[in-house]
Amino acid sequence: MSERFDRGVAAINDLGGGYEAIFEPMADIAPDLSRFVAEFAFGDLYTRPGLEPPERQLLTIAALVALGGVEAQLKFHIGAALNVGVPPAKVVETIYHCLAYTGFPRTVNAMRIAKSVLADRGLLPV
Amino acid sequence: MSERFDRGVAAINDLGGGYEAIFEPMADIAPDLSRFVAEFAFGDLYTRPGLEPPERQLLTIAALVALGGVEAQLKFHIGAALNVGVPPAKVVETIYHCLAYTGFPRTVNAMRIAKSVLADRGLLPV
Amino acid sequence: MSERFDRGVAAINDLGGGYEAIFEPMADIAPDLSRFVAEFAFGDLYTRPGLEPPERQLLTIAALVALGGVEAQLKFHIGAALNVGVPPAKVVETIYHCLAYTGFPRTVNAMRIAKSVLADRGLLPV
Amino acid sequence: MSERFDRGVAAINDLGGGYEAIFEPMADIAPDLSRFVAEFAFGDLYTRPGLEPPERQLLTIAALVALGGVEAQLKFHIGAALNVGVPPAKVVETIYHCLAYTGFPRTVNAMRIAKSVLADRGLLPV
Amino acid sequence: MSERFDRGVAAINDLGGGYEAIFEPMADIAPDLSRFVAEFAFGDLYTRPGLEPPERQLLTIAALVALGGVEAQLKFHIGAALNVGVPPAKVVETIYHCLAYTGFPRTVNAMRIAKSVLADRGLLPV
Amino acid sequence: MSERFDRGVAAINDLGGGYEAIFEPMADIAPDLSRFVAEFAFGDLYTRPGLEPPERQLLTIAALVALGGVEAQLKFHIGAALNVGVPPAKVVETIYHCLAYTGFPRTVNAMRIAKSVLADRGLLPV
Repeated sequence: MSERFDRGVAAINDLGGGYEAIFEPMADIAPDLSRFVAEFAFGDLYTRPGLEPPERQLLTIAALVALGGVEAQLKFHIGAALNVGVPPAKVVETIYHCLAYTGFPRTVNAMRIAKSVLADRGLLPV
Repeated sequence: MSERFDRGVAAINDLGGGYEAIFEPMADIAPDLSRFVAEFAFGDLYTRPGLEPPERQLLTIAALVALGGVEAQLKFHIGAALNVGVPPAKVVETIYHCLAYTGFPRTVNAMRIAKSVLADRGLLPV
Repeated sequence: MSERFDRGVAAINDLGGGYEAIFEPMADIAPDLSRFVAEFAFGDLYTRPGLEPPERQLLTIAALVALGGVEAQLKFHIGAALNVGVPPAKVVETIYHCLAYTGFPRTVNAMRIAKSVLADRGLLPV
Repeated sequence: MSERFDRGVAAINDLGGGYEAIFEPMADIAPDLSRFVAEFAFGDLYTRPGLEPPERQLLTIAALVALGGVEAQLKFHIGAALNVGVPPAKVVETIYHCLAYTGFPRTVNAMRIAKSVLADRGLLPV
Repeated sequence: MSERFDRGVAAINDLGGGYEAIFEPMADIAPDLSRFVAEFAFGDLYTRPGLEPPERQLLTIAALVALGGVEAQLKFHIGAALNVGVPPAKVVETIYHCLAYTGFPRTVNAMRIAKSVLADRGLLPV
Repeated sequence: MSERFDRGVAAINDLGGGYEAIFEPMADIAPDLSRFVAEFAFGDLYTRPGLEPPERQLLTIAALVALGGVEAQLKFHIGAALNVGVPPAKVVETIYHCLAYTGFPRTVNAMRIAKSVLADRGLLPV
């Protein structure tokens, strides 16, 4: 694979894993989709200078809350935020912040996902 | 007005102004809407501990890129990000980051708005 | 044309006109689109029993605020709400109500459109 | 708690309950989120004059259908609509009305949620 | 029923069935919703000249990927695409194509639905 | 630049140009954004086998109609569709098709953009 791919996989590994659960199912239908995730989303974008991984995780959470309907991705990226050292309270605060821009339903749904991730790790109460 | 209102207005002022252009037009139709912005969006949410104003501005930009169709708000919050000390390159990087989550059209549109804000302030090229 | 078409056009006329400005441009590219609006949106749906035109206008406004990016339709339907007797304050209140579900940006943008419609009719301040 | 909080809780109780199922899970992760729902969504917005609770429930349903991906909230607000005296047929008619603005998929999904709420209460067929 | 209805039902049947699973539940709550699907979505729109059923299925998949939160409809229309002769690889390629416009989360979610449909039919690996 | 870049630029050129108007403004703020469009959107995705350029243009239009708020991109891709030999009537039919999935407002707005593109090329009436 390319240097972009290796760089992207390294970035994904730095986020602490769990990605396989999302992308392994792509192996027999769309293997290039996992490759694009590694090469483009992580190799090209995520590893750019100017933002640190914890910052990128919070931005990702904000974008996903606004997008709606992307529970699996929210779950992965909240977990990854914790893995790169974002304190649970800061994840929670990021979701609160979205309230003004996306309204209560999307925000409440995101907070419930955050709760499930934090509960699985024994990090409740925040 | 309430302490929440005063706290919110102070937070808005700390972002460097320009807000009047968005909310003054509400005076003769929905004055409580401006009040709710000050009291709730800024007084209750924005001034919570746990995230600093520069971080909140980047989160806001990410949420607005994902939301789409909110050009006036993107323009205001990109300007406010600069006002609270976010370097132009970091605003740009935040928009790049959204590419993976929201696709090219929303991202390109947001970057064009960022360009107009930066151009108005003589901050180009980044 | 069909009975559905005639019923739909009558419903549109009852809303007070202005629809031509949206659909006349369709005549040389997609005339069936205007026909579907008349037959389906108005002839089939709008004229069903169980909700009165003023109620339908308020529901339409709420759906359009949540949808985002549909300024021309918001403008038409706010005007139509006024035409069927909805008081300006109730249009405004409907937009306020959306704040909890769609966040500030979409709501503020909708209120600005409401303001332009009310201003054009000399109905400000509310 | 504040007068806004008490007023909001009273408004929620007037909708007939069931809210705890959505917000109790927030107690150990984001207790202020439930507080903001009570204070802002219900205390500030819902209790404003100009729209009655049954009207607000129908508007809420229309906004949620358009928003998409907010099944838990649709379920709660359809139930609340019934609790404040909206006839089942009017809930159904509100969802039909959204067809013109949000297309078939979002509308059909909303109707299926309405069906589950009505079935649980023995209110089918409508 | 009308000629439009019969034409629509024939078009649905040509897609290979499975539609009953979505619309049968509407019988006791909103029977006209199924009728509108047959009459309008299929009788009026789907059977228009200018696009063949396989093309329409691919367009539908692209629109549903972009819409988000419409899993049941994606599942039906991916199955229908296969039923009208679209090769599995072309369904997959359509979802890949959406990556540029809708970002990774919506695309990955759609690909997982495609995988479940293809797996049920023993069509994996593609 | 890379082979991916060259392949992408060639694909863009095959679409008949006009892209510069969208991406030239990125030169002094986010030059990598144009590069990613060329490398990823066109070099990686667009040139994959399995779908021909005319098919890809129709899929793109459907996704953009559903996305909403992306007028500049709709304008470019409708023009590009014509450039690669899609008959005007087929562009129009693609937008009609979206009516069932995205509702009238997004569809009508897209048809108005199609009209402006077709009018500029003297292709009306369709």
